[in-house]
Amino acid sequence: MTIPNTVLRPSFAITRASHVVLQVADLQKSRAFYVDTLGFVVSDEDKSTLFLRGLEEGCHHSLVLKSSAGRNCERLGLRTLTEDDLDLAETHFKKSGLPTRFVDVPFQGRTLHTTDVVGTPLELCATMATQPRRIMDFELHHGACPQRIDHFQVLTPNVQRALDFYMAMGFRLSEYIVADGSDDLRAVFLQRKGNPHDIVFVNNAGPRLHHAAFTIPEVQHLMYICDLLGRNGFGASVEWGPGRHFGPGYARFVYLRDPDGHRVELFTNHYQTIDMEDAPIRWQVSDLNRGRWGTTPPTSWQQEASAFAGAALSQPQKAEPAYAR
Amino acid sequence: MTIPNTVLRPSFAITRASHVVLQVADLQKSRAFYVDTLGFVVSDEDKSTLFLRGLEEGCHHSLVLKSSAGRNCERLGLRTLTEDDLDLAETHFKKSGLPTRFVDVPFQGRTLHTTDVVGTPLELCATMATQPRRIMDFELHHGACPQRIDHFQVLTPNVQRALDFYMAMGFRLSEYIVADGSDDLRAVFLQRKGNPHDIVFVNNAGPRLHHAAFTIPEVQHLMYICDLLGRNGFGASVEWGPGRHFGPGYARFVYLRDPDGHRVELFTNHYQTIDMEDAPIRWQVSDLNRGRWGTTPPTSWQQEASAFAGAALSQPQKAEPAYAR
Amino acid sequence: MTIPNTVLRPSFAITRASHVVLQVADLQKSRAFYVDTLGFVVSDEDKSTLFLRGLEEGCHHSLVLKSSAGRNCERLGLRTLTEDDLDLAETHFKKSGLPTRFVDVPFQGRTLHTTDVVGTPLELCATMATQPRRIMDFELHHGACPQRIDHFQVLTPNVQRALDFYMAMGFRLSEYIVADGSDDLRAVFLQRKGNPHDIVFVNNAGPRLHHAAFTIPEVQHLMYICDLLGRNGFGASVEWGPGRHFGPGYARFVYLRDPDGHRVELFTNHYQTIDMEDAPIRWQVSDLNRGRWGTTPPTSWQQEASAFAGAALSQPQKAEPAYAR
Amino acid sequence: MTIPNTVLRPSFAITRASHVVLQVADLQKSRAFYVDTLGFVVSDEDKSTLFLRGLEEGCHHSLVLKSSAGRNCERLGLRTLTEDDLDLAETHFKKSGLPTRFVDVPFQGRTLHTTDVVGTPLELCATMATQPRRIMDFELHHGACPQRIDHFQVLTPNVQRALDFYMAMGFRLSEYIVADGSDDLRAVFLQRKGNPHDIVFVNNAGPRLHHAAFTIPEVQHLMYICDLLGRNGFGASVEWGPGRHFGPGYARFVYLRDPDGHRVELFTNHYQTIDMEDAPIRWQVSDLNRGRWGTTPPTSWQQEASAFAGAALSQPQKAEPAYAR
Repeated sequence: MTIPNTVLRPSFAITRASHVVLQVADLQKSRAFYVDTLGFVVSDEDKSTLFLRGLEEGCHHSLVLKSSAGRNCERLGLRTLTEDDLDLAETHFKKSGLPTRFVDVPFQGRTLHTTDVVGTPLELCATMATQPRRIMDFELHHGACPQRIDHFQVLTPNVQRALDFYMAMGFRLSEYIVADGSDDLRAVFLQRKGNPHDIVFVNNAGPRLHHAAFTIPEVQHLMYICDLLGRNGFGASVEWGPGRHFGPGYARFVYLRDPDGHRVELFTNHYQTIDMEDAPIRWQVSDLNRGRWGTTPPTSWQQEASAFAGAALSQPQKAEPAYAR
Repeated sequence: MTIPNTVLRPSFAITRASHVVLQVADLQKSRAFYVDTLGFVVSDEDKSTLFLRGLEEGCHHSLVLKSSAGRNCERLGLRTLTEDDLDLAETHFKKSGLPTRFVDVPFQGRTLHTTDVVGTPLELCATMATQPRRIMDFELHHGACPQRIDHFQVLTPNVQRALDFYMAMGFRLSEYIVADGSDDLRAVFLQRKGNPHDIVFVNNAGPRLHHAAFTIPEVQHLMYICDLLGRNGFGASVEWGPGRHFGPGYARFVYLRDPDGHRVELFTNHYQTIDMEDAPIRWQVSDLNRGRWGTTPPTSWQQEASAFAGAALSQPQKAEPAYAR
Repeated sequence: MTIPNTVLRPSFAITRASHVVLQVADLQKSRAFYVDTLGFVVSDEDKSTLFLRGLEEGCHHSLVLKSSAGRNCERLGLRTLTEDDLDLAETHFKKSGLPTRFVDVPFQGRTLHTTDVVGTPLELCATMATQPRRIMDFELHHGACPQRIDHFQVLTPNVQRALDFYMAMGFRLSEYIVADGSDDLRAVFLQRKGNPHDIVFVNNAGPRLHHAAFTIPEVQHLMYICDLLGRNGFGASVEWGPGRHFGPGYARFVYLRDPDGHRVELFTNHYQTIDMEDAPIRWQVSDLNRGRWGTTPPTSWQQEASAFAGAALSQPQKAEPAYAR
Repeated sequence: MTIPNTVLRPSFAITRASHVVLQVADLQKSRAFYVDTLGFVVSDEDKSTLFLRGLEEGCHHSLVLKSSAGRNCERLGLRTLTEDDLDLAETHFKKSGLPTRFVDVPFQGRTLHTTDVVGTPLELCATMATQPRRIMDFELHHGACPQRIDHFQVLTPNVQRALDFYMAMGFRLSEYIVADGSDDLRAVFLQRKGNPHDIVFVNNAGPRLHHAAFTIPEVQHLMYICDLLGRNGFGASVEWGPGRHFGPGYARFVYLRDPDGHRVELFTNHYQTIDMEDAPIRWQVSDLNRGRWGTTPPTSWQQEASAFAGAALSQPQKAEPAYAR
């Protein structure tokens, strides 16, 4: 394991995790789950696509559901600061030997399709169409009251490679996990927006999307959303929690599986990390159990994840669970 | 199964679940758990006994911990309305062929020791010494902020017998569980104070105390107390939850095991049931899974309980779990 | 001031505050306030009447709104334990020289109309039609999530007379307020159901209904309902709070004025008071400011109240505010 | 009013509001307020100074209290990204004709003292000594559980000048208020860290510090801290709220006055604003009342503020309240 130097002024500026595009089998069932139950706001919809956002988001969408025969994750979306940064990003990815293509995506500005070094399909854009923030439209607040997208967790057998690649683009390492008594890297937590994660890479067969995470306001929403999910026929979708992470991020969480098996984390709290003296926090796997209460993550949480459309799966060298909590 | 008629004006008035007396191996460890972590108020303590109450309680104690080689529950405490009711209770228990004895108990008025028909050791009193309610002493509020005792759950192979006995004393049946497709009684929820339970009997080897339950103010206390328990070295004491009961009482709960294995339920919400049109709610075991989310109760929750000091254990006729949730 | 003896076994059993009947000018506007915003459940409605209940209530209604040219309170409803108690109540009120009449009221069992000694129009019944409790129907929970009716506050220049009358019927005095340095009674808090109040009498011109109070689950509902009221055009209805009472009941409250000016209190917390050693708590007016924060009640809260239909208004001997907080 | 262009890559990088230095008359009284009641963590203290931080902060301090005969605000602290940025900042301020001086400040890296164009005394540093984040030290969480510093609000008669100056340093304008029907600028909300404010300037006699703001976790903490303040003898310190801002930031807030009259805002929620399509939100003064409930800010909140040590006070041209809410 080697932690690269932080690049404070990268050649182009990625600002944050932006959105995720998921394939779903039955758009109406997904609507019942994400909109009627969890409380996402519909920005637009047609026969084949649902564009959703959280209550505080003024951008058009942070969650895109596409009707499809597959049940893959199509792409993870990242934002650049400006249009110029998009062109500089194209140059950067090309130089790295990665495919790039500018495409038209509804409700987004110019959009660059590319792939990172571990095979994650990405799309970068600088702007989206705007929508009203619904912070004060209290009559629309229901379910979990999702506020905004926060981060993605991606599984890959090449955590070190992902770390090197993202830190070269200016991501900062907030926390990381190594195997006990070794420098064997199990997980890295990378951020651009000043809180613990925008994108996380965890050692496992991949590339696969473990989860996309959205913020919710308070602890009571964690408990209430489970009750409402049960009532609306989605009781089995509560995979793990409500609980507390005794490791990176310290989040109070609940993990849900949507009708297609995609995993969504809802959580209430992170911390701010902006300053240069915030050195990456090093965890050994066994540290993660200090102070813990509650159930350990179920096998499904440890092993299952959404495939990325078109991505070939690689296995990690060691079969042991990467992130055995 | 037969549900007896409700006795609206019994010969003597029991008013509520009052207190529980538990034997503990190490009083300081129990203090760390109940006082320093959960937030119970100490009314009095000496070398061998700790008298605790909840923040809203003006009575002297609702939880008594006694240093002892055993780790049994000594007695469940019930309140009568007046001193006269105590004498009438003595008469009633004697007539039922049950042992009765007036004893001196510190900080309690005249106290009647007796045993119910299923072998549960009881103590009845009409009054206690008073203490200041700590509702407005906000600097004392910490941990789970326990408010008051609410109910006991007792395991017994003779649920029908317990039902008949307690209803004859004026307890009202709020809810009950039968086996699927039969009248085979699995659990009865009995109350005097106008909310769902003061005492609950569930089919299992007994008599044993499954748990004593205390109210806490809000959902966030359910989550916070788990975090604090973990931090204070009691993470493993979180046996089940935080979760929701999809059956009698509908409580949002967490079940804890104290340092001696005694089980405590903390919960936030019950409903009022005072009116005569509130007929007992009938549940079949399989109804209990409707709308459920989260983990099922662990085996320990289904099988383990505190013995009552001096009580002989009887096994149920059927080995099947009484209350398979 | 004299506090009568508590009557533990009165000639008939009143069990609790049951319901309130309010006249309103525009039923649709009241529906927008109570149902669409506060979150009451509609049990029944026709052109002229709206029958509402809280989410945990299994009885048909706790709040009845009648379309009317007046904007009075028609009656306060109390429950008796049994039908026999109703007949015994009739005898009692008759003996006291008060008017009694059995009437048919929709969705209620036999109903006795009468008036108390200070002129409050009452209706007593032993049963109502039942409705499903909505505790687990989470998709119906919105607004303030009102749970159940708790108590009434009535203004009267004859607080002592009300106290004597209600205690003779078995009500217990939980708390009372006297003027500083005197025995001049300003307010009495009376209960039957084991928490601090079912009915409160406060010295002022009366009889008038100061407010009816409903429980809500958590502190966050106090804040959220204000936001939603503002959003729905009812911002001016927030009369006082969210705040804390530094006196009887200790409630965390918000006081609202409905579209007709009737006052509703929403609050989260009370304490249990069942035991005989719970002596009435004596407050002097100046005690009420100990530990206080926040705004004092506005003049409207101190002076305005709903008239009772058909009741003649009496002024208190002293003009000073009875309950100057 | 003219809104300058956003400077995306300024000559040096300020990252966030960092800390505030307040003069206090009695350090022990301030400790009782900030530490024992509000729940700030003590990083260091000596006879004359108290260094405090929030529970999630890993930097040494965000609030510095200095024993002093004056009761002024000494300085507002801002962070730069790197040491190089500090030197570039020195150059920038010098070029603007503003005083600059590198000084030694305990527990801070190299620190630049300077003054902005409206007379606010500033200190900039790139790093501080580190301290453990207390996110998981649940036994230390009490009072309001303050998490971290968020922003400052400064009063000045030269809002436009402040706007021009801060935007030239790369601050982005998230929201602003103009007088009704005019372009007369009343308040500007400026940010660097991706949420609505780091520093706010409001039209009024100045420069004065209106308040420093700290985040707290949940709505219930807003209510609880008022109760605890009252209990600890600080009831009168609750100046306004708990309430909701119906304007810039939309925060759920409570404003407190500390023992020296310095004003602190505690609030729970802001939104993320990072994207280029997030145009500044324009408010007219009268817009601020849309949807409002609760009390308007007291006169003290509208007029009083802490002087900055050594700063000459200027009056606004118009006497009218700048920010009449």
